[in-house]
Amino acid sequence: MSPFRGSVPFTEDWEHFRVTRADGVATVTLDRPEKLNALTFSSYADLRDLLTELPHRGDTRALVLRGEGRGFCSGGDVDEIIGATLEMRPDELLDFTRMTGQVVRAMRECPVPIVAAVHGIAAGAGSVLALAADFRVLARSARFAFLFTKVGLAGADMGAAYLLPRLVGLGNATKLLMLGDTIDAASADRYGLASELVPDEELDGTVAALARRLADGPAFALAQTKALLTQELDMGLASSVELEAMTQALLMKSADYAEFHAAFKEKRAPEWRGR
Amino acid sequence: MSPFRGSVPFTEDWEHFRVTRADGVATVTLDRPEKLNALTFSSYADLRDLLTELPHRGDTRALVLRGEGRGFCSGGDVDEIIGATLEMRPDELLDFTRMTGQVVRAMRECPVPIVAAVHGIAAGAGSVLALAADFRVLARSARFAFLFTKVGLAGADMGAAYLLPRLVGLGNATKLLMLGDTIDAASADRYGLASELVPDEELDGTVAALARRLADGPAFALAQTKALLTQELDMGLASSVELEAMTQALLMKSADYAEFHAAFKEKRAPEWRGR
Amino acid sequence: MSPFRGSVPFTEDWEHFRVTRADGVATVTLDRPEKLNALTFSSYADLRDLLTELPHRGDTRALVLRGEGRGFCSGGDVDEIIGATLEMRPDELLDFTRMTGQVVRAMRECPVPIVAAVHGIAAGAGSVLALAADFRVLARSARFAFLFTKVGLAGADMGAAYLLPRLVGLGNATKLLMLGDTIDAASADRYGLASELVPDEELDGTVAALARRLADGPAFALAQTKALLTQELDMGLASSVELEAMTQALLMKSADYAEFHAAFKEKRAPEWRGR
Repeated sequence: MSPFRGSVPFTEDWEHFRVTRADGVATVTLDRPEKLNALTFSSYADLRDLLTELPHRGDTRALVLRGEGRGFCSGGDVDEIIGATLEMRPDELLDFTRMTGQVVRAMRECPVPIVAAVHGIAAGAGSVLALAADFRVLARSARFAFLFTKVGLAGADMGAAYLLPRLVGLGNATKLLMLGDTIDAASADRYGLASELVPDEELDGTVAALARRLADGPAFALAQTKALLTQELDMGLASSVELEAMTQALLMKSADYAEFHAAFKEKRAPEWRGR
Repeated sequence: MSPFRGSVPFTEDWEHFRVTRADGVATVTLDRPEKLNALTFSSYADLRDLLTELPHRGDTRALVLRGEGRGFCSGGDVDEIIGATLEMRPDELLDFTRMTGQVVRAMRECPVPIVAAVHGIAAGAGSVLALAADFRVLARSARFAFLFTKVGLAGADMGAAYLLPRLVGLGNATKLLMLGDTIDAASADRYGLASELVPDEELDGTVAALARRLADGPAFALAQTKALLTQELDMGLASSVELEAMTQALLMKSADYAEFHAAFKEKRAPEWRGR
Repeated sequence: MSPFRGSVPFTEDWEHFRVTRADGVATVTLDRPEKLNALTFSSYADLRDLLTELPHRGDTRALVLRGEGRGFCSGGDVDEIIGATLEMRPDELLDFTRMTGQVVRAMRECPVPIVAAVHGIAAGAGSVLALAADFRVLARSARFAFLFTKVGLAGADMGAAYLLPRLVGLGNATKLLMLGDTIDAASADRYGLASELVPDEELDGTVAALARRLADGPAFALAQTKALLTQELDMGLASSVELEAMTQALLMKSADYAEFHAAFKEKRAPEWRGR
């Protein structure tokens, strides 16, 4: 969380997806069901900007990402993105591909836990958005397709070649990214992509319960857990152990740590304040 | 192994756990069964110091870590550790958290293979001790709880956010460290945390046989295998391949390599000397 | 692919294994069935040199590695390699171990996708050759034995201690490399070592279909997918995302990306040209 703000106003209207907030849980619903929630230049930009603002607002302790209609997200729109990029100059292309990568970086670097609620297809950029979340709750109808090579691009898109081997191992990641084939929810679960796998009719309830639990949890401790998981993927053992020692020493001065001890002594549940 | 010693004496009496030695196998038994073997400031210090001395003694070729009574280790004691840390200054807290991390570093950097024999609960620091071992033999009663967020701390404790993603993948590690829920032995096995999973009544026998095998093995080769597995987690491909080339060239000058060849020619089992 | 060549001729006759080429698929068959395709100093050298030349030839879009007879490859020959190394000077040993590591580096750095077709035993260096491939199609008879410690050497050989934890996790890799035990195809599959697991009689057909598919695919996109999977194992998130942004911007100027869009509009399959 960074409550420090200068002149920049918060954005209250997001035009390119639906945003709702309730009791510390923000929900972003990709909302072009007629296009299987295909992404556009503008929805990428809105995702990047929303994720940048989110930690500054101080009102969000869990973020849910979901899709309206028959699936989660079919990725970049064939007409609005692929067609358009064919006309672009090299520098314009890089502006675009950097923006898509920035969305993934912002998801990983955002201190708020992110839950992807996946039903139906998560394809291309849609599959990487799910990959960059902290939790992936999968409905049985969920399918993943890292289909980039099928459109003539590298399977390495938006950090997929960084993230996927760290979730499912290099062998499985090579297969998924080189071939781009669609896998079902059971396969995704076997590979280690599912935080939870539930019947479709239980998806919303399971996601709501998880988001509730995260939002009611010790927010500072959760944010540091996410931050260190993210950072230590590329750190050595000695520096990781030192970073964890620093982190825990700081957290031992937090109100929530004292609250745990008081609650334990009083045989009641702790009331987390997130600081 | 580093046989080089100056003035520092070896410690013969460890007050804060039980240590036995037999035929090259040292066994550390956490021995506060009435507290589920909860760790104290002193038992952390003894673990750190024992692991530092161990490679210098030259009498230990496998180390077993186990718990007396109903479980492996319930982690830091709520009264003696959590209560006490609430009264500490920042610099004292860092002294403590650094010591706990030093135990994990010493386990990973120790050239002696370490086997954790886990039955019942391995919680908090107890779960990380098991994680830092080379082998985890799990009884069916074994349970893991990386419960740090449940006490208001980061799931990143003693290197857990470094080690766990490298054992079970980032998705599973996020779930285990953010939520801190208890998992049973079957789940631990599915995640890749179990070197072996056995009925409770077979735990001691299986661990003894594994420790025996490691202690009777080619100690220098085993030590180098562990060292390179540890180091190469954070090295590049080219430097890793060079390090392995250097290592094998050195080992090809060892007595054990020649012994393998002689034994093979004579159709007998090799007698490893560990050099 | 690097089509740039100076004075160095291509090698047309490989003496130490069989090489066939057909329609963009090159097949290397280890061909000493009476010795379970044990490797010799010369076959290592030929593997190193073939992999170095391959990207320059421009005629190969998929490489298959297989073994003649009862198994894939039993590793370094006990007489011709182990016996011979016992007589070598330290600098000669390093020349040898570096060459073996160079084979693995060349496999990982080669832009051509590599498919290992594994039936019967893949032991020692043979198991690492399979590990360094992009795809491992396993027959049910396949078995892996990272048996280095059983000959008195480190389990870290030819990059095994780098690659294996990145495919199967640190816990499983420790078990496989420290103990050196043989695992069957079902275990290999459970660990994440199998791209596909098929009955023995379907091995050749499955491998041929996969190689065909890769050779007919968008070669430039596939090469970049492999390159980034390889490089990003040791890069940070921010630099990986930037590298992927650069890569996709370049590929969006490729003929294959335009071809995908044209084919999509015309409701036909794309014809990849690999540029």
